[in-house]
Amino acid sequence: MANAHEPAPYRILDAEGVRSFLASHATLRSRLGAEPERWQIREVGDGNLNLVFIVEGGNGAVCLKQALPYVRAAGPSWPMTPERAYFENAYFSAVAPHVGRLIPEIYLYEPDLYCIVMERLAPHIILRHGLIGGQCYPDLARDIGEYVARASFFTSDLAQPFEHKLDGMALFAGNKPLVRISVDLIFTDPYRASERNRHTSPQLDDIVAALRADGPLKLAAARMGWKFLNQVEALVHGDLHSGSVMVTGGDTRVIDPEFAFYGPIGFDLGAFFGNLLLSWYSQRAHRAPGAELEGYRSWILGQLALFWRSFHDRFLALWDAGTRGDAYPAALLGPPGNDAARAAARREFMASLFTDMLGFAACKMIRRIVGFAHVIDLESIPDRVQRAACEAGALAMARMLLTEPQRFASVQDVIDAVPRVEVAALSDRSAGAS
Amino acid sequence: MANAHEPAPYRILDAEGVRSFLASHATLRSRLGAEPERWQIREVGDGNLNLVFIVEGGNGAVCLKQALPYVRAAGPSWPMTPERAYFENAYFSAVAPHVGRLIPEIYLYEPDLYCIVMERLAPHIILRHGLIGGQCYPDLARDIGEYVARASFFTSDLAQPFEHKLDGMALFAGNKPLVRISVDLIFTDPYRASERNRHTSPQLDDIVAALRADGPLKLAAARMGWKFLNQVEALVHGDLHSGSVMVTGGDTRVIDPEFAFYGPIGFDLGAFFGNLLLSWYSQRAHRAPGAELEGYRSWILGQLALFWRSFHDRFLALWDAGTRGDAYPAALLGPPGNDAARAAARREFMASLFTDMLGFAACKMIRRIVGFAHVIDLESIPDRVQRAACEAGALAMARMLLTEPQRFASVQDVIDAVPRVEVAALSDRSAGAS
Repeated sequence: MANAHEPAPYRILDAEGVRSFLASHATLRSRLGAEPERWQIREVGDGNLNLVFIVEGGNGAVCLKQALPYVRAAGPSWPMTPERAYFENAYFSAVAPHVGRLIPEIYLYEPDLYCIVMERLAPHIILRHGLIGGQCYPDLARDIGEYVARASFFTSDLAQPFEHKLDGMALFAGNKPLVRISVDLIFTDPYRASERNRHTSPQLDDIVAALRADGPLKLAAARMGWKFLNQVEALVHGDLHSGSVMVTGGDTRVIDPEFAFYGPIGFDLGAFFGNLLLSWYSQRAHRAPGAELEGYRSWILGQLALFWRSFHDRFLALWDAGTRGDAYPAALLGPPGNDAARAAARREFMASLFTDMLGFAACKMIRRIVGFAHVIDLESIPDRVQRAACEAGALAMARMLLTEPQRFASVQDVIDAVPRVEVAALSDRSAGAS
Repeated sequence: MANAHEPAPYRILDAEGVRSFLASHATLRSRLGAEPERWQIREVGDGNLNLVFIVEGGNGAVCLKQALPYVRAAGPSWPMTPERAYFENAYFSAVAPHVGRLIPEIYLYEPDLYCIVMERLAPHIILRHGLIGGQCYPDLARDIGEYVARASFFTSDLAQPFEHKLDGMALFAGNKPLVRISVDLIFTDPYRASERNRHTSPQLDDIVAALRADGPLKLAAARMGWKFLNQVEALVHGDLHSGSVMVTGGDTRVIDPEFAFYGPIGFDLGAFFGNLLLSWYSQRAHRAPGAELEGYRSWILGQLALFWRSFHDRFLALWDAGTRGDAYPAALLGPPGNDAARAAARREFMASLFTDMLGFAACKMIRRIVGFAHVIDLESIPDRVQRAACEAGALAMARMLLTEPQRFASVQDVIDAVPRVEVAALSDRSAGAS
């Protein structure tokens, strides 16, 4: 339990502010070690929105995350309520009973400072960095599939009476500023001229112009935007890309759920799936040609299948273990004699999530190449021609996922298409250049 | 404005309670006439949940509706929060700017008493009574189609930034007890043995037993139940059957939105559509055979088409007039060159609503025949054999709508099927009886 401490009006913390704040909490002081003046404190945030401090003492370490009152990546000219820390903590609280050690342990939420003190994850690194570095993580895809299955199943109407979900929806309805970011930056801005957009120019100018004039693509994106706002299937993380996962060779943790809201399960699935695809298309710039490149790309494609399989199997296992919710009530489809209907319900439910996953994955890929916030998988490629080639492949794949979903009945169909689409995109580019 | 008046703790009003309550509000007193002791007050509620008083004075009249703390149709053994009056008033407030005189004017909401004082509608009657009486209402279908189009469009993400909808969702998330009634009585109980169910017995025993063992039907109902809880497309009335519409030959009003919640637009469409179908199947018992029966039934079938057409055209006209919302953003699909994508978006959106309408219509038909709350279109048929014959036709139609939706690409397909299904159902029954 925290010591009594002075009321702390909101202020942006620096290292000394972090020190005195943590020192005022007995449990945190004892976790870190008795001499606060000897704690090592450094700010390590590399995201778009927050300060992140790592604090190391003689006994242990903690991570402190503070929400800033503006978008860090844009500066104070783009104000943003720090309330998102409240929703991040609320999300962690809601899923913690279900996802076990797939999230960090939360030690304290301080509402006045909009900050969360949590387990310091070490020697974990951000998954995105690991993928750029060519690391393989044997449990990653299984863990994240399991994570999405558990977090979404248990917050859906399958697992609990709908009243719980309505209470949750009322609470997370307050996370409007973050949902606004998603709506604008994922589903709107990338498909029109906007000052917040950028892309690798001039190399991608033609492709981006074509994208913004592509009626079927814009229609498909608008359809996904409708789903995003209208399918309240579960409490979703809302930003489950490879920058929101920390890994070691044997441990996986999901962080940064400040975009949490009630939405489509496929949105979280698609975020992870789409970022694996982005990584695949970027690898040509990060791996040595030949065996190294091919081997690592094969590993990534394998993760697509493992991820979906892990999600699929765990979700259905939870469903089979019994639903106490109002959706697809066990009272109707549970009794003997309903095997065919029960199987059909599961089959069509999973097929719908699969379709949503691919559509949202594509939206997430597109926004990272032609929208406001990009990914370092691609941004870190210094040669603009090479970067544009990687991006062109990813954009072509995203377009096919969005506008020709009937091509993809299984993950294998995606896996088969990925290299084909790259070849076609590269050949288009050399034809265009010649 | 109301006079200052004493705080009024909740109590169930009787005629004298109504008199003193209304007399304490200057505007209502002046609306009714100066001598409260001469006001005529009678309780006329025939619904399942509330007291309804008509108060007539020398100058005018009002209607006062008070929510009871239990389900009126079941008695105090089924408690029910009177908070629903709050949501009824909130719904009226939300749609009033958009639906004009298609709802009664609201004079006062008294939160302590959970009562609403509103325009007394006269000489209106409940539409259901009019349909049983064989009345034709030339504007009815157009008006209700227009009503659903306006109420749903303007509370959807097409018309306004999504933040408005999230605020509304947070508010209406509190209407859980009424949503609970819908979930249980529409999507669950009818499809299983439940003490709250009843049906015309023994005449329908076999059909009802078959219904509760019908896997594809239960799967389809569960699918609609999922949509009910997971598609937050608009603020919907939630109980838009022919008992929630009051009519004269030239005026149409929607009442009783206490089941309001954010849900599928097709739920309101289906409630009205399904209750027209229930009326059609009941008419054999209410009209003289021959021209009278055939003529009135043709009129009802025509209303199905007019209703959908009115909804469809108005909704698209509102959409064409410009969306200021985040869904299908005008910024993407609006500019010249996007005609095909824009047309496709509208076409698939309306097709999806049409499918939902038929599915929800079927669920509403089934629950009124084999569930807890029945409709007097059928209940008022004294001859149980005749009633069961009507009900069997309606159940067969509902089953086809739910389990064979691919048969129905247009309202005309429904209109064509309705008499065919009746003939088949009647012939099944005579075959079974012989």
